[in-house]
Amino acid sequence: MTSAGGVVDFEPDEPMLYTFGGGAEPVAMLRPGQVLRTVTEDCFSGAVLTVDDLPSKVCEQFNPVVGPFYVQGAEVGDTLAVHLLALDPAKDWGTSATFPHFGALTATRATAMLHPPLEERVWRYDIDRHAGVVRFHARRSAYTVELPLDAMLGTVGVAPAAGEVRSSIVPDAHGGNLDVPELRAGSTLYLGVNVPGALLAFGDGHARQGQGEVCGVGVECAMRVTLTVEVIKGVRTPWPRIETDRQLMSIGVARPLEDAFRMSQRDLIDWVVELTGLDVLDAYQLVSQAGRAAPGNVCDPNYTMHAAIDTVLLRGAAAYGGVHRRLRQLAGAMW
Amino acid sequence: MTSAGGVVDFEPDEPMLYTFGGGAEPVAMLRPGQVLRTVTEDCFSGAVLTVDDLPSKVCEQFNPVVGPFYVQGAEVGDTLAVHLLALDPAKDWGTSATFPHFGALTATRATAMLHPPLEERVWRYDIDRHAGVVRFHARRSAYTVELPLDAMLGTVGVAPAAGEVRSSIVPDAHGGNLDVPELRAGSTLYLGVNVPGALLAFGDGHARQGQGEVCGVGVECAMRVTLTVEVIKGVRTPWPRIETDRQLMSIGVARPLEDAFRMSQRDLIDWVVELTGLDVLDAYQLVSQAGRAAPGNVCDPNYTMHAAIDTVLLRGAAAYGGVHRRLRQLAGAMW
Amino acid sequence: MTSAGGVVDFEPDEPMLYTFGGGAEPVAMLRPGQVLRTVTEDCFSGAVLTVDDLPSKVCEQFNPVVGPFYVQGAEVGDTLAVHLLALDPAKDWGTSATFPHFGALTATRATAMLHPPLEERVWRYDIDRHAGVVRFHARRSAYTVELPLDAMLGTVGVAPAAGEVRSSIVPDAHGGNLDVPELRAGSTLYLGVNVPGALLAFGDGHARQGQGEVCGVGVECAMRVTLTVEVIKGVRTPWPRIETDRQLMSIGVARPLEDAFRMSQRDLIDWVVELTGLDVLDAYQLVSQAGRAAPGNVCDPNYTMHAAIDTVLLRGAAAYGGVHRRLRQLAGAMW
Amino acid sequence: MTSAGGVVDFEPDEPMLYTFGGGAEPVAMLRPGQVLRTVTEDCFSGAVLTVDDLPSKVCEQFNPVVGPFYVQGAEVGDTLAVHLLALDPAKDWGTSATFPHFGALTATRATAMLHPPLEERVWRYDIDRHAGVVRFHARRSAYTVELPLDAMLGTVGVAPAAGEVRSSIVPDAHGGNLDVPELRAGSTLYLGVNVPGALLAFGDGHARQGQGEVCGVGVECAMRVTLTVEVIKGVRTPWPRIETDRQLMSIGVARPLEDAFRMSQRDLIDWVVELTGLDVLDAYQLVSQAGRAAPGNVCDPNYTMHAAIDTVLLRGAAAYGGVHRRLRQLAGAMW
Repeated sequence: MTSAGGVVDFEPDEPMLYTFGGGAEPVAMLRPGQVLRTVTEDCFSGAVLTVDDLPSKVCEQFNPVVGPFYVQGAEVGDTLAVHLLALDPAKDWGTSATFPHFGALTATRATAMLHPPLEERVWRYDIDRHAGVVRFHARRSAYTVELPLDAMLGTVGVAPAAGEVRSSIVPDAHGGNLDVPELRAGSTLYLGVNVPGALLAFGDGHARQGQGEVCGVGVECAMRVTLTVEVIKGVRTPWPRIETDRQLMSIGVARPLEDAFRMSQRDLIDWVVELTGLDVLDAYQLVSQAGRAAPGNVCDPNYTMHAAIDTVLLRGAAAYGGVHRRLRQLAGAMW
Repeated sequence: MTSAGGVVDFEPDEPMLYTFGGGAEPVAMLRPGQVLRTVTEDCFSGAVLTVDDLPSKVCEQFNPVVGPFYVQGAEVGDTLAVHLLALDPAKDWGTSATFPHFGALTATRATAMLHPPLEERVWRYDIDRHAGVVRFHARRSAYTVELPLDAMLGTVGVAPAAGEVRSSIVPDAHGGNLDVPELRAGSTLYLGVNVPGALLAFGDGHARQGQGEVCGVGVECAMRVTLTVEVIKGVRTPWPRIETDRQLMSIGVARPLEDAFRMSQRDLIDWVVELTGLDVLDAYQLVSQAGRAAPGNVCDPNYTMHAAIDTVLLRGAAAYGGVHRRLRQLAGAMW
Repeated sequence: MTSAGGVVDFEPDEPMLYTFGGGAEPVAMLRPGQVLRTVTEDCFSGAVLTVDDLPSKVCEQFNPVVGPFYVQGAEVGDTLAVHLLALDPAKDWGTSATFPHFGALTATRATAMLHPPLEERVWRYDIDRHAGVVRFHARRSAYTVELPLDAMLGTVGVAPAAGEVRSSIVPDAHGGNLDVPELRAGSTLYLGVNVPGALLAFGDGHARQGQGEVCGVGVECAMRVTLTVEVIKGVRTPWPRIETDRQLMSIGVARPLEDAFRMSQRDLIDWVVELTGLDVLDAYQLVSQAGRAAPGNVCDPNYTMHAAIDTVLLRGAAAYGGVHRRLRQLAGAMW
Repeated sequence: MTSAGGVVDFEPDEPMLYTFGGGAEPVAMLRPGQVLRTVTEDCFSGAVLTVDDLPSKVCEQFNPVVGPFYVQGAEVGDTLAVHLLALDPAKDWGTSATFPHFGALTATRATAMLHPPLEERVWRYDIDRHAGVVRFHARRSAYTVELPLDAMLGTVGVAPAAGEVRSSIVPDAHGGNLDVPELRAGSTLYLGVNVPGALLAFGDGHARQGQGEVCGVGVECAMRVTLTVEVIKGVRTPWPRIETDRQLMSIGVARPLEDAFRMSQRDLIDWVVELTGLDVLDAYQLVSQAGRAAPGNVCDPNYTMHAAIDTVLLRGAAAYGGVHRRLRQLAGAMW
């Protein structure tokens, strides 16, 4: 269990970090190829333990991230590849909640209305890593049902461009609170680098979430995270992208939702053009018939949607010089 | 090859129908349980044969439908179940196109801008039913690639409520041009009945389409359609719903896209409440973690998104009294 | 008190009309230049008389219109000019209301959420035509205040294109329930003609309304309407336009609201180009600095926004051959 | 020409500031009641001098602001009142432009499409302060026309909450690039204070702009700014608000545009409730009939819309303890 670059075990300290960008000192240095092992707290900063712990009462801040990590060699204009080697819930339970005026089926601060908030309610899920399930327990009846465990990171990002500092609640071009279920073990996330060292941070583990994260909250849990990074020199990545063994995926991050859709489709078309040499309208046509699309979140300050295409349709083209395949092989060598 | 209700073979006549609702005479009567076999023309009314037939030049009207069929016993306040038994492309080719100021990545009549239209271009696909593929040919290079054949009907609907008549281009609560890829063989579509006889009509076959139908056009083809209908008496269905062997699916039909998302999620939650007895917030929570969501089209006068949940999570509940399962058994008995 | 074309006094009959388009027989023929005098019922079909008459309880249908009137000589591809000569509330009171799941600050059928409806409440206003005020009375306190009387028609339209029939609640390219306060006496509304005779209908008088009509309902009142029409032969009008003595105004009719904005701005730019000979980007620039914009309604099935420019900035150009000025002179001659 | 607090003349230094929040040292201290006189550069940082200076070629950064000013006594949870005493264009010309993929009638980074950018073009306006006009010159014809000079500040803001730093291009709850024409001399802007000293900054003077700023750029000009500030202790202001002699105005800042509308309307209703004691639905009703609404910008990273009501309808209620009236009297005493 080793890698070319070695393994860095990082134990997060207090106080936790709640922004991307800004003056926070890097907590550690990562060399490309090194494996980082750490653990992230849940989005409630660990304060919601039982169904009686209402987030609006027990939480002071939301969505802590671990970092920032300074990635050696990452410079403005490069792309950072973050490959998730393993994600394991750190506890045998997770929680979810409705939160006052947050979520897709409630009036919110932005979609302002005259309704009082929906009831704030907490659900506690059992997480069984061996069986690979999370168990839902209804709060107003005895209904329970098992859902597949499908661990993911809700929030992965770097320092934003233009000197901006963004709350860890906000997803945007720098990544951040993307809340897309495809950020699971085996995926590689590509992010444009805006500052020297990129300043990677992440957190917000979900044992699983539905597409769209309609109530605004996944099955939140502390997460053991194993990841590695690479730097693709001199290649810009305007919006977050994800590669899996089977698919390329562009993430649109915007309000309204049609703009997140448009962004993701446009970026995927550009990517297909680059990888296949297709004319842009030919790529538009191919994506129109072969593409997949789904929302990540429709609740955060920006919504996310992905546009995806099966790699096999690109006839062997390898994104970013094949970095995903190399990182997968590394993963295979480790376990 | 028969059914309890018998088989109706219907040969469509000229002139074609381009609206849902209005005074068009029913073309035939359908009894619940009867099997209807017919063929639909493509959305170009068959006028696009080669890549040189630009739709804006050769088409006078778009999206013809076959019908209306008067469904015996269907009354206002009932639900019509339309079960797709088989969909087979009627020819060994299909076409797609960009169309001036239509699609998701172009200025349109509604999203009005100052850009001239994108180039109008036609693609012609080979359809190989035996191999189960459609072959894409790029127009500006020699690139070709095979995509899975995944035949679907873009447009299925009934007469709208409130005396309205809608163009066959428009999707809304009455169904119509939904353009959701899940309308494939084996699926049951549920639509609320607004007028006596429901007045079912359908067309717009696609050999396949991507999620979101980003360029505005699928792989359009004439389609042999085999379907059957049932009437669920006294049960209202506010928005289109689809049932497959594995999933329940609510279709939101609206602009903007977040409203299509909200509608679909809200309707699915209501459906889950009805089928499981869960409290509404418990159902909200379950759908938030277990739900799937994707766009059908993001190009038509109303956009569509589905919200879906695996039937297995509902612990045996049977939607609409189990009509989908019965119709599937009928299908099994036929072939 | 006469006009070149004479005066038609029309007394509306039962049953009332609730759609634009469809097979309804014309109620009368109008010759261009004739003056039509009639009275429209309020949007509650006259059923809300006191603050205890909740619309959801006492109304069966909403938004009756008077018509359709067959305009002699109006053919497909022409423009109908509807000039409002006088609008006078027919009673000394009007009503408004919140309505369950209707309005901009509540969950609605389209913006579906999990909130129960806001309280349904009726307000009754005094209308004093001589003083030119409407008096608001709060329902939960003794607060009253006078607002300027500013009578307008919420709904004016013709038969839609493409054989569609639309509910009188819906605004779209054919006009209909536009709910823009600028449809007051002295204004000329331009609508494209889609069927022979245009089939004009109107109703939904408001003693006044705010911009955006945020609760979904104006100060609704029966209205004495005096109007006249002209036909501009061979000139198409894609979206509703309004001319006043001071301004030209294009109406965008769409969801989402940014599309209503875009439509209106784009149409105004096209109009300015046509009237001034400016290059399109020069017109874009002029409208960007000189234009006015405001919402009509943000509550109906389509939203409306206007884009306006002062006629004086167009250096003497006369829209539609100066028809507005001629109709104003006619009005001057009549009173 | 003096005030209770005296006058601070501030000469801005290089380098210019392009963010709200972050570690920038305050450039000066302001005491409540003091009058600040300074000059702001135009949004092109002064680099566009002629119609041949294309912004995408000659500008490195956009929208410089002057500041931050530390306001003595301003603490988290207070409201800062910024009263604009005078705005005078510093030069006798201003410029505007189309900018690639920026504006409401073009594909943009967020509303991503496949269109190439519109032509980038610069317009140069004459500004005549004595005549009170700006003169538009078309670029592709000899057309010229005079528009009223109506000087305003596009960008006024404070440090954001939650440790965020935002580009000066972005409007949000902290103010920033609001681009609402009502920020003219005689207006008071209210902003919630998020950090000690508030850290006020401003710039982006426009000789005028249309409502919605449809091309994305006003008549940009260097501006002499005279303003004064007050601190309203212990009163929170969630969204920017403006008071004029005649109106109260809430500014919604969001995408999509309907959310900016909803926010502004909701905030105005809350404000009316607070000032009149009306029940919330009574206030909703009053605003529905008496309210005005218009867009500020529909082009920036967040759109702005205002909701306004005439102060006279509030029967003597004085917002924020009458601070606007006191500051107007100060202004009167000064000149």
